[in-house]
Amino acid sequence: MRVFIAGMDGYLGWSLAQHLARRGHEVAGADALYRRSWVEEMGSASAIPIATIDRRLEALRENTGNAIPFWNGDLRDYGLVDRIFREFEPEAVIHLGECPSAPYSMIDREHTMFVQMNNLTTTFNLLFAIRDLAPGAHLMKLGTMGEYGTPNVDIPEGFFDVEYRGRKDRMPFPRQAPSWYHWSKVHGSNNIMFACKIWGLRATDVMQGVVFGSRIDGMGEDWRLRTRLDFDQAFGTVINRFSCQAVIEHALTPYGAGGQRRGFIPLRDSMQCLSLGLENPPEAGEYRVFNQFAETYSIRELADTVQKVALTLGLNAGVAPVENPRAAVERHGHHFAPDHDRLRELGYQPSRDVASEVREMLEDLLPHRDRIAKHQSALLPDVHWDGRRRRVDYLGKDGPSDWTWAGADEAVLKVDAASP
Amino acid sequence: MRVFIAGMDGYLGWSLAQHLARRGHEVAGADALYRRSWVEEMGSASAIPIATIDRRLEALRENTGNAIPFWNGDLRDYGLVDRIFREFEPEAVIHLGECPSAPYSMIDREHTMFVQMNNLTTTFNLLFAIRDLAPGAHLMKLGTMGEYGTPNVDIPEGFFDVEYRGRKDRMPFPRQAPSWYHWSKVHGSNNIMFACKIWGLRATDVMQGVVFGSRIDGMGEDWRLRTRLDFDQAFGTVINRFSCQAVIEHALTPYGAGGQRRGFIPLRDSMQCLSLGLENPPEAGEYRVFNQFAETYSIRELADTVQKVALTLGLNAGVAPVENPRAAVERHGHHFAPDHDRLRELGYQPSRDVASEVREMLEDLLPHRDRIAKHQSALLPDVHWDGRRRRVDYLGKDGPSDWTWAGADEAVLKVDAASP
Repeated sequence: MRVFIAGMDGYLGWSLAQHLARRGHEVAGADALYRRSWVEEMGSASAIPIATIDRRLEALRENTGNAIPFWNGDLRDYGLVDRIFREFEPEAVIHLGECPSAPYSMIDREHTMFVQMNNLTTTFNLLFAIRDLAPGAHLMKLGTMGEYGTPNVDIPEGFFDVEYRGRKDRMPFPRQAPSWYHWSKVHGSNNIMFACKIWGLRATDVMQGVVFGSRIDGMGEDWRLRTRLDFDQAFGTVINRFSCQAVIEHALTPYGAGGQRRGFIPLRDSMQCLSLGLENPPEAGEYRVFNQFAETYSIRELADTVQKVALTLGLNAGVAPVENPRAAVERHGHHFAPDHDRLRELGYQPSRDVASEVREMLEDLLPHRDRIAKHQSALLPDVHWDGRRRRVDYLGKDGPSDWTWAGADEAVLKVDAASP
Repeated sequence: MRVFIAGMDGYLGWSLAQHLARRGHEVAGADALYRRSWVEEMGSASAIPIATIDRRLEALRENTGNAIPFWNGDLRDYGLVDRIFREFEPEAVIHLGECPSAPYSMIDREHTMFVQMNNLTTTFNLLFAIRDLAPGAHLMKLGTMGEYGTPNVDIPEGFFDVEYRGRKDRMPFPRQAPSWYHWSKVHGSNNIMFACKIWGLRATDVMQGVVFGSRIDGMGEDWRLRTRLDFDQAFGTVINRFSCQAVIEHALTPYGAGGQRRGFIPLRDSMQCLSLGLENPPEAGEYRVFNQFAETYSIRELADTVQKVALTLGLNAGVAPVENPRAAVERHGHHFAPDHDRLRELGYQPSRDVASEVREMLEDLLPHRDRIAKHQSALLPDVHWDGRRRRVDYLGKDGPSDWTWAGADEAVLKVDAASP
């Protein structure tokens, strides 16, 4: 199938290009390479070194035999999108071309506006290009489980049957997103749902859990095939960030008491799910929603797992909770029971447990300790949800009273001593 | 109270400036005068002549004794918003500064993007300006009942208590908007709800029904005080459009069988409700939603009313249904039972019935028959929800079988005969 990947240079996009090429799809991509500069702006860098886009494409050709057409440009420019669609004639479009960071969207007015306008505009340009130039093409849009927030009821896959005052209807499940970024995804979801309704487009909206992991199969053969792995406050997801902390024996720093529960999915499972959705497209006019994650965990459980796995590699990382910069929107200890049946019905089988994935990631990261140590100030957040920007404090002994992990206080002391 | 009106040159904005000035508020406003050019772009003009903004402000000063500070500019420019807030120091902000047309947003990609980006940007700029420069100010944002769509259950005011799989929560009521414009309002509502949560702002989100009517009290004293009244497919609301058709004895042209049911509110009641909300602000951090309309009617009932009232003035307008350009999103004969208690609890009393309001409007319009006749081609829609643009057909005798209004066929014949 001819698959166009919007945002091919990112953590998922670069993995997906390889995964789909190896599965025999004809892949093309575009990217403006913004992720590289956003992470730099956050004072950080990918923990695992990545090649330039030219060397990446070269490696892909050498390793898979596929020459991947690639456009280095901004998909907010409809002229570019139009040209790509006319030249490549996609049968499917996987939309990863958005700015994916909640903290980045919370920095200030300029960043909020950039994230929402960028994400809305790229999505619109793809929708209109599909309507006008590739009306049968299947749009797979990467959304996030975060769109739902954490309601006190179970979370269905997009829609639910409601009974209200004695009448019934099937309706979109209400979204209660926790950041401007997450709202940009909700706005995009709403726009896509509507485009399917009025234009008969077919779309899969992927509510993905938090992704973690440093590789997919085949990626280790050539360093130029490796995907990025971020650990800064804005672009590093939590398990990846904990793993980077562990390899430099920095304390793991959950936000608050760590009682936030979320859905998580390994990078290789994300690829498995995206290709399942791609290869089992919806009907024309159908807008379907997948909740894409393997399991739910609390942040506390994950810190515990990373700490234990690290110890087996001789890495002694404490756990030192910090104040939660998202305290206004995150609850400690809450109901979280999202459905995730649709991908399993299509054949999704979770590949392995978190501990195995973390072990592989730590091994991949160990050779790059210096890169992480060099940017370790990026590990702790300073973007607060109330609009202020200041470094968070460690909670230490004055922290949550039920916080009893071994090593926490020692870790704080160790970190504090190391601070300038 | 110092009240800043964003979008002061529009149908509601100009009425509200007078209404609030007469109630003793200190009013300021801004507008880029885009509504004037949008209507011109639709090949139309206000049925009731309106003065230039300079003459309007002059008339307001002469008639109410108030000199109204006014900024002629685009609120997408944050520099302008910043300047206004520093100079005027508003205690309340009434946000009417958006493009308010569903058909206009459905014309093509450029119009879709313009409407969504314009509406999101002005709302963001006001939110950030309130946060940084007027944190106690109450934001009243004009939304629309259309945000809800037409679900098969009752519509609460913004939030509802849900029981789902045996658990309970209070959640935002799902929105199912019927146009890109309506979705822009949903996106804005979501953003405002979130701003209240993280920054402690106070906001009233007004889900307003379809407004109709040609004046509020005091407006008749000076022609420069009159507000605009549009009848084109994009900016003319349905009762106003029917009334303009009636005064030129053009057939009234409901879309399809006219079974769509909506909430409606006279212009003077809209003013009453907005000032009630303004003078009874929410608490800091509170995001509240009002469903602002007087009664619900089907389009068919309204055509019937306008036709009957017109007859009492000797105007013989038939009714000739046309194909529904919004057929993809509008249902004929559906449940529609929205709550509207909160404004009544604050003291809202509907002023008078539709027939009285229509009679006044027809009398106001009669002197301007020529202006309407001159632009009568703007009365019929050509913007279709499927993305095509072509003039709708009359349904005539092949139309809905339950369509039995007297005069329909004659009207069609009359209109057809008059067509070039």
